[in-house]
Amino acid sequence: MEYFPAPLEHLVEQFAKLPGIGGKSAQRLAFHVLSLPEQEAQAFADAIVDAKKNVTLCPVCRNFTAGGLCPICSSPKRDESLLCVVADPRDVAAIERSREYNGRYHVLHGVLSPMNHVGPDDLEIKSLVDRVAKGDVQEVIMATNPDTEGETTAMYIARLLKPFDVRVTRLAYGIPVGGHLEFADDATLMRALAGRQEI
Amino acid sequence: MEYFPAPLEHLVEQFAKLPGIGGKSAQRLAFHVLSLPEQEAQAFADAIVDAKKNVTLCPVCRNFTAGGLCPICSSPKRDESLLCVVADPRDVAAIERSREYNGRYHVLHGVLSPMNHVGPDDLEIKSLVDRVAKGDVQEVIMATNPDTEGETTAMYIARLLKPFDVRVTRLAYGIPVGGHLEFADDATLMRALAGRQEI
Repeated sequence: MEYFPAPLEHLVEQFAKLPGIGGKSAQRLAFHVLSLPEQEAQAFADAIVDAKKNVTLCPVCRNFTAGGLCPICSSPKRDESLLCVVADPRDVAAIERSREYNGRYHVLHGVLSPMNHVGPDDLEIKSLVDRVAKGDVQEVIMATNPDTEGETTAMYIARLLKPFDVRVTRLAYGIPVGGHLEFADDATLMRALAGRQEI
Repeated sequence: MEYFPAPLEHLVEQFAKLPGIGGKSAQRLAFHVLSLPEQEAQAFADAIVDAKKNVTLCPVCRNFTAGGLCPICSSPKRDESLLCVVADPRDVAAIERSREYNGRYHVLHGVLSPMNHVGPDDLEIKSLVDRVAKGDVQEVIMATNPDTEGETTAMYIARLLKPFDVRVTRLAYGIPVGGHLEFADDATLMRALAGRQEI
């Protein structure tokens, strides 16, 4: 790849660092950026800096937000007694799309994974326990992915929440086992919410 | 996709504009950028602006360069009488990797494609003819891809160069090195037979 001018090589390298983008794809993307009008390339660069600078984590639910409390945590219409625990902000988006859920969320930002050296302290578990300890929450719905790591994380958290006076439930297996929440269709998510089971 | 804060949505949209990047991939890439240290996100943004600003086309061969003549056009070691015509700067990189070629290049930036409304005026064909007209070039190697559009472009340019005193050649067709006869398509085998060489 040493046959392109340095600034182009540089851009190819940056694209190649992105997950799932190989060398050839990185070249294709860098060439595409060069073909853009200067204004559009600038807009792309600005979007990166802007997102990195202005997207923060909600101090309550740890979901992404543009500063301060997120819209869901600050909405008075949301049921404060119901808490849905997900691994990823994309899962919040997926559940919101189903329009079936009116409670609050808690985003763990990952799942327990000893293989990848992810332990309880790497996740937003302590903030979840603190939240439940305040006593407003009556039910915690564990909505991690129905795979091994998601299950383990759900069981681990369920055990942590035992001392508190809350119902801990799990999304029903309307979701295909081994699948990912993010890719579930709306109807499946709706069924899964409606059929949740106590664990 | 209206469940993420605006700056994040914005970044997802920018990624989704890239060729070959769908909605889910764009989300994944945007989330990855958010997970980067601020410094690395800034470096990515800078690389985009820098490449767009500092990569220009060589005034002679139309290959990408970081301002002024490209390294190949400005090298006195390169044979000026030999000109290799390619569709894309990536093809220059591919031929350079073979270390077999010591002439100059001319980059067309595309091939003739009536279906996509690409005509001769959209390519660097006039600059090629002007270059050949100067009289230094003795052989023009047409190295466009061996598909219909590449062939058509090569034939079109060969005809344009007829009035000048230059040899116009085409890359050899045949079985790829390391390939298997069994898997070669009929057209390639036919060409390989027709172009057989004495050993």
